[in-house]
Amino acid sequence: MKRPKTQDERDLLLYESRLLRPVRLKTPEFERGGRIRHVIFSGQFSVPFLEELAGIADMIRLMSKSREGQDFLINLLPHKRAMLYFTQPSTRTFLSFMAACQVLGITCNEVRDPSTSSETKGETRFDSIRMFSSYFDVIIMRSPIARLAESCAYLMNDLDSTGNRSVPIVNAGSGADEHPTQALLDIYTLQRSFQFASPKDSPTANKFDELRERKGYAGLTKGLPHKTIGFCGDIGRGRTVRSLAMLLALYEGVRLVFVAPNHPKLAMRDDLRHRLLDRKVCFHEVESFEDTLDGRPVIEQLDALYMTRIQKEHNDPADAASMASIDFSRYGLTPELVGRMKEYAPILHPFPRDQHFGEIPPEIDNDPRAMYFRQARNGMWIRAALLAHVFDADRLISRHFMTDYVERHNYND
Amino acid sequence: MKRPKTQDERDLLLYESRLLRPVRLKTPEFERGGRIRHVIFSGQFSVPFLEELAGIADMIRLMSKSREGQDFLINLLPHKRAMLYFTQPSTRTFLSFMAACQVLGITCNEVRDPSTSSETKGETRFDSIRMFSSYFDVIIMRSPIARLAESCAYLMNDLDSTGNRSVPIVNAGSGADEHPTQALLDIYTLQRSFQFASPKDSPTANKFDELRERKGYAGLTKGLPHKTIGFCGDIGRGRTVRSLAMLLALYEGVRLVFVAPNHPKLAMRDDLRHRLLDRKVCFHEVESFEDTLDGRPVIEQLDALYMTRIQKEHNDPADAASMASIDFSRYGLTPELVGRMKEYAPILHPFPRDQHFGEIPPEIDNDPRAMYFRQARNGMWIRAALLAHVFDADRLISRHFMTDYVERHNYND
Amino acid sequence: MKRPKTQDERDLLLYESRLLRPVRLKTPEFERGGRIRHVIFSGQFSVPFLEELAGIADMIRLMSKSREGQDFLINLLPHKRAMLYFTQPSTRTFLSFMAACQVLGITCNEVRDPSTSSETKGETRFDSIRMFSSYFDVIIMRSPIARLAESCAYLMNDLDSTGNRSVPIVNAGSGADEHPTQALLDIYTLQRSFQFASPKDSPTANKFDELRERKGYAGLTKGLPHKTIGFCGDIGRGRTVRSLAMLLALYEGVRLVFVAPNHPKLAMRDDLRHRLLDRKVCFHEVESFEDTLDGRPVIEQLDALYMTRIQKEHNDPADAASMASIDFSRYGLTPELVGRMKEYAPILHPFPRDQHFGEIPPEIDNDPRAMYFRQARNGMWIRAALLAHVFDADRLISRHFMTDYVERHNYND
Repeated sequence: MKRPKTQDERDLLLYESRLLRPVRLKTPEFERGGRIRHVIFSGQFSVPFLEELAGIADMIRLMSKSREGQDFLINLLPHKRAMLYFTQPSTRTFLSFMAACQVLGITCNEVRDPSTSSETKGETRFDSIRMFSSYFDVIIMRSPIARLAESCAYLMNDLDSTGNRSVPIVNAGSGADEHPTQALLDIYTLQRSFQFASPKDSPTANKFDELRERKGYAGLTKGLPHKTIGFCGDIGRGRTVRSLAMLLALYEGVRLVFVAPNHPKLAMRDDLRHRLLDRKVCFHEVESFEDTLDGRPVIEQLDALYMTRIQKEHNDPADAASMASIDFSRYGLTPELVGRMKEYAPILHPFPRDQHFGEIPPEIDNDPRAMYFRQARNGMWIRAALLAHVFDADRLISRHFMTDYVERHNYND
Repeated sequence: MKRPKTQDERDLLLYESRLLRPVRLKTPEFERGGRIRHVIFSGQFSVPFLEELAGIADMIRLMSKSREGQDFLINLLPHKRAMLYFTQPSTRTFLSFMAACQVLGITCNEVRDPSTSSETKGETRFDSIRMFSSYFDVIIMRSPIARLAESCAYLMNDLDSTGNRSVPIVNAGSGADEHPTQALLDIYTLQRSFQFASPKDSPTANKFDELRERKGYAGLTKGLPHKTIGFCGDIGRGRTVRSLAMLLALYEGVRLVFVAPNHPKLAMRDDLRHRLLDRKVCFHEVESFEDTLDGRPVIEQLDALYMTRIQKEHNDPADAASMASIDFSRYGLTPELVGRMKEYAPILHPFPRDQHFGEIPPEIDNDPRAMYFRQARNGMWIRAALLAHVFDADRLISRHFMTDYVERHNYND
Repeated sequence: MKRPKTQDERDLLLYESRLLRPVRLKTPEFERGGRIRHVIFSGQFSVPFLEELAGIADMIRLMSKSREGQDFLINLLPHKRAMLYFTQPSTRTFLSFMAACQVLGITCNEVRDPSTSSETKGETRFDSIRMFSSYFDVIIMRSPIARLAESCAYLMNDLDSTGNRSVPIVNAGSGADEHPTQALLDIYTLQRSFQFASPKDSPTANKFDELRERKGYAGLTKGLPHKTIGFCGDIGRGRTVRSLAMLLALYEGVRLVFVAPNHPKLAMRDDLRHRLLDRKVCFHEVESFEDTLDGRPVIEQLDALYMTRIQKEHNDPADAASMASIDFSRYGLTPELVGRMKEYAPILHPFPRDQHFGEIPPEIDNDPRAMYFRQARNGMWIRAALLAHVFDADRLISRHFMTDYVERHNYND
């Protein structure tokens, strides 16, 4: 790194040595009392944590169906004030966090202008963050600067250790590297699909036994282990792909298939490849849904399919030439392709989808395998569960659910 | 219509055949269980509905005078989250809806940027709307695109019929055609003026008998029927004029007088003319307040006057030439003109007024006939009443008002 | 003043004669029932008021430490809706007011665009303000136009006297002249520092007796009277300096030292000089911390130091030449300078600080004298206290604190 010239650069440099350590050393530093305090990267999540959080999200979702449950929820954290600091625009993630806060009664505040007035007056990012921490109780931040959220978490830890006010940091997307809550909602959507429990979550809920016995899916199991998950589109620049792939790697026997053009911007990058190899995850890289896997076309072998948008806005002029020969139509779904997919295989997409590229044409929206709209709503529930965890309100939710709610509603699941 | 090229155009085309049907066929489709669910055009409102809603607005207004009443109201809908999706700027309508939501405890969220980040990523409008419906419980929308709100209401109906999540749509102004809640607040203001009940609503409250017996207004009645209502200014481009005129047409014996320059952009357009003729409404078109009606100058004959702003921002270069000869001073009020109006005749204006054009100079603000500031506050109350109706909370309001509130306050009206 | 051409100019002119009267004549007009209703300039504050408000702020701060106290506070004013009308950008003041409102349960709304859509339609500022007063219960406003807030307060008084709706105006910074709530938080921070009561507020809390007896500060007293307060940096253009200096002038025996370059833009201006002379306040103007005061360098003589940012954004091209010879390094702190300051002397800064100019380098942040981050949080508490005062909720806070809270927590201070 070149010699820092501004205080902003010096601030980031200050934490660089901490940032460069292995994830396993950093994970405990973002916890407090055995609970996650700062949500920075998806490497912080373990399978038991993912399952616990999904359970809380399920309870919040069910309680939200009754006025009594809603009243309980909005009275959980009305004394908390959140700052949504989004210097990189994102309507969807922003609104999803807003709604998640509101489900729990948290009051929201926002700074979305990439250049706040204070920055134009020469304020450092750390001074801005510390200002937010003076007024608010959690900072949910999205930034184009890689690892800014992580540095801010360390700033908060340092303030804490010197007896100053310090609040949790939640990373809502930082640079090209991490978007941990997107990975959370993707995993939560897959978990619910493979429970085969509710028609709202799975194309074939309640048909699990039939699927195994009569439809030729004899090896089908519930849950994520041993599933084959496909990713299609912009693998190289998709941070959601990277984060989700690393979370899936936590589950036993999961196999990943990446369907992308053979182009350095779009195909899998070395960092993800090496991380998957390190974890001994089984994965395949192909250029088309028609390439074979175990002797059959990939599209017919997938237990779930994760589509992505080609991020043209990140192309540079040279890319236009080098991408000219790619047949992009191979990276879009069609009703015909969907018709060949497994009957129970959910289709996900982090959204927005691109109407001009058409990676998922709207004709598919009514197919029971299309999970992408539910995925959005799942984002709200799992983010609410995460905030409840951060503020230690998850136990109040379980207790209320287990006693009052279950009794009142005679709920059996 | 030319062949659609984008998915956005295909989406609008999909609903076009439904949109083109007569209003009376569409009205029931925007209801559910006999109540209005989507508020799209003023043609949905009947006289009994307008009266019922005015009654709810009156109760909300009265309850808001006491802390006990306010507490009841803000605890009605705190579990509801509204999206105010305003891609056409409007400070006044926007803030009025915000305040109306807050009166009932509804939490507000907003997207106001004409190009949301998702749209720049190629998202269709329908995908954006469906995203909003994933996170929020009502979408209040204002758009420069004619009939977008109506198409969104049909989208929601279709989602509902396929078992998907669906929320009410409230049209806060779409294109040049409809602004139904402005019409609601205008009617509500007129209704209150002609009740002659409160000095806050009428220039001559409590003097009704005196007016009839001694002031020469022998034919004066309470209520809207048989009144002569004047509209002055930009009749051609004023969608508030169009909506209000159509609502007034529902009342027996109402007579409308349009005072506007004889210019194709500014004078009444054929569509409104035909609709009024179809309904057999009595109306007159004149070029000046001094033109005669029943043998006397128009200004002296009006029971109410609705002023409007000349929407210069919609002029094109050719208009400058064709409007050069118009004497615009004839379309502004003066204290002298107001002095000749009937003593009880309220003056309305949808605001903002134009300080440079001066259609209502501030000298008139203290005249008891000036109702335009109260009109703004009425907008908040009637919008709150409308949201209470949409969320089925209006009956709770009546019940509370009739029992607890009336008893406690010994309220007699 | 030249002849007004627009209605906006006429509106301001209308109040000019009232604005030009002495402060002591205007102060009672901004009160109602012996309480401040409109908060316009720091000249409205007396020492007893400042002490009363600090007491309320202290109670709010303490109550916010428990869920029970927070619940009491957020249920104080949930029926109130605030409009934050900030046409001059300011992230910090804006967020501080937002948080202050939320502490008391007040719902916030905002208009921040310097040109609202209504203004582009020709609306006057007064019509905009009156619209806000139709929907909201307090207007907190920041504007680049000098004395706009004061004019709006008179508009509200006039509305009140004609039986119209009228709401309190809170000045959050108007033009170059006044920023009364910044002065409030500065005074509150100084008050707390010189109580020597809590380590959160003072570099040397609980060491007061030791300081007097053994550290050579024999004359040290508690409280603000007889303190020497230094101001450094952009004295000429710092409205926070001007407001704070005038408030300090209320305390007996206070001495002020202004450290600034000898340049007409940066040095003290005649208006402040004359006001301090009128009040017979003892003050000194020097060009360096090394200039002497009572025979010793200024930096060693200060009981408190208020640093400011050089407001380069207000330089015009001619200033570049005339400021070229100034040694600006003399107007920044260094650890060495801080080391020479009195052990108990708090360092304040209205923030943001300028990372490029470096008037306070971050090495100083961990010095116990650095109070500037606490100052920010104090801003939230004192603004909450001020809003409680405006809405007459301060007595409810004292009563609850004195009975329920003190008992429950066995609080002794």
